[in-house]
Amino acid sequence: MERYDIAIIGSGPAGISAALNAKIRNKSFIIFGSKQISNKLALAPHINNYLGFSAIKGKDLLKNFQNHMKEMDIEIVEERINNVYSMGDYFTLMVNQKMYEARTVILATGIEYTKPLEGEEKFLGKGVGYCATCDAPLYRGKEVTIVSYSKEGEEEANYVSELANNVNYIPMYRGEFKLNDSINLIEDKPKEICGETKVEKVVLKSGNELKADGVFLLKNAVPPTQLVPGLEIEDGHIKVDRLMRTNIKGCFAAGDCVGKPYQYIKSAGEGNIAALSAVNYLAEKDF
Amino acid sequence: MERYDIAIIGSGPAGISAALNAKIRNKSFIIFGSKQISNKLALAPHINNYLGFSAIKGKDLLKNFQNHMKEMDIEIVEERINNVYSMGDYFTLMVNQKMYEARTVILATGIEYTKPLEGEEKFLGKGVGYCATCDAPLYRGKEVTIVSYSKEGEEEANYVSELANNVNYIPMYRGEFKLNDSINLIEDKPKEICGETKVEKVVLKSGNELKADGVFLLKNAVPPTQLVPGLEIEDGHIKVDRLMRTNIKGCFAAGDCVGKPYQYIKSAGEGNIAALSAVNYLAEKDF
Repeated sequence: MERYDIAIIGSGPAGISAALNAKIRNKSFIIFGSKQISNKLALAPHINNYLGFSAIKGKDLLKNFQNHMKEMDIEIVEERINNVYSMGDYFTLMVNQKMYEARTVILATGIEYTKPLEGEEKFLGKGVGYCATCDAPLYRGKEVTIVSYSKEGEEEANYVSELANNVNYIPMYRGEFKLNDSINLIEDKPKEICGETKVEKVVLKSGNELKADGVFLLKNAVPPTQLVPGLEIEDGHIKVDRLMRTNIKGCFAAGDCVGKPYQYIKSAGEGNIAALSAVNYLAEKDF
Repeated sequence: MERYDIAIIGSGPAGISAALNAKIRNKSFIIFGSKQISNKLALAPHINNYLGFSAIKGKDLLKNFQNHMKEMDIEIVEERINNVYSMGDYFTLMVNQKMYEARTVILATGIEYTKPLEGEEKFLGKGVGYCATCDAPLYRGKEVTIVSYSKEGEEEANYVSELANNVNYIPMYRGEFKLNDSINLIEDKPKEICGETKVEKVVLKSGNELKADGVFLLKNAVPPTQLVPGLEIEDGHIKVDRLMRTNIKGCFAAGDCVGKPYQYIKSAGEGNIAALSAVNYLAEKDF
């Protein structure tokens, strides 16, 4: 298996800025995310404080970013990393059925803007989870509800449906849905996750209820502590030093996931630092 | 006297990025530097890693920066701050004969790339200084040599010439020189600063020597500890935390002066953070 010098998780401004620098420094690297780069940016109205572009629309700044990636011949791999494990002098990155290896990892996963559902935090680990493919085996023959904030959730739902007795899928986005026939598409929104000591049901906005042994909330950003076991968090963000080093050797982070202010130019600057810190780390390790 | 909310010292990418955010956040502010923004940037060949501009020439990126300043109606004040004093809940900024006041200060002074002259560090404080106008009174009736890396040094030399017995001026740049008639323009370069316990002479590349009681080295970036007494330094750079706060309350810093990597996008990102931290500080102080 190819072992990359640098694996970048996330394709927002921090991730793609890191990718630029990995490319320029001639490192082997892979960047996971969306070819669209950033939905949030596409929807942003005028941005005034990205130095060099005055009063630019989000979608136009995005076009400049996409063009920059294209000119530098950088391809974004559309896969969702579920777990990153430190193996000592390298990392294993797990996608649903696949694995990648890299000597360093840069986390640029952004932050989740959705506020938690009622009951979400109470039942976390007691029926509520964020990675359906990781925990699906626990729900063999049981009732599962999947609340998904993006299209990637459909593939996860299809996988879970092969094991669970019944899967309800609640999309929190619009579009066409590619779901196995056995999955129930719920055209409603979740209101509350209820139970005694563990999840028992999901109450919907309409008042209807879905019986559930497990509820998966598939958000755009996987919580970093779930993504990388052992990662140190401070005030709700990944703790990094000024060189964007996390508490795990060889693991760096940049952008919204490391803290406020949530600003594009700040994220781009941090992506630059993280990549150059990874390059220096590789040099010191004599990889 | 007007007391600004924010005074920004330096007009490189960190300084102007901070200015953008001060403007957007509707703070009263002043930015000191050069209307040209950055000579270093003007001379940079292709820049590949400023996210959004692929393979852009330094002078073209500079044009985009200048245009952004113009569109946002931000004027750079061409004055050189010699000292910044914390007065408790505000700062006094000293220019040669003038004073400014501000509630917060953002240092974006860059770093000095010139390597020290032989003897410079040995005789620092023993005849070698960086601020001619500050120390000129010490050299009343004496011999002074001024080595200047920029045109701003001419005004300082003229001031010193009113006090000193004799002033030699060594320009380390090209151009026309506006110097008092009493000043000797030296068309040579300094090689070494010599003396026993204190400065006695400057040896030039040609082998000629200039008798000197004092030598002023007027660099583009004033050393930060000279600029702001009490400022904490770490590994040769201004020590800041992740919010760009220095050890002095209300004093922030960003860009090359706070550490490597020396990269435009990193500086722009840090300028953004510093300005927003200053805005938050002002809000907390209820100014």
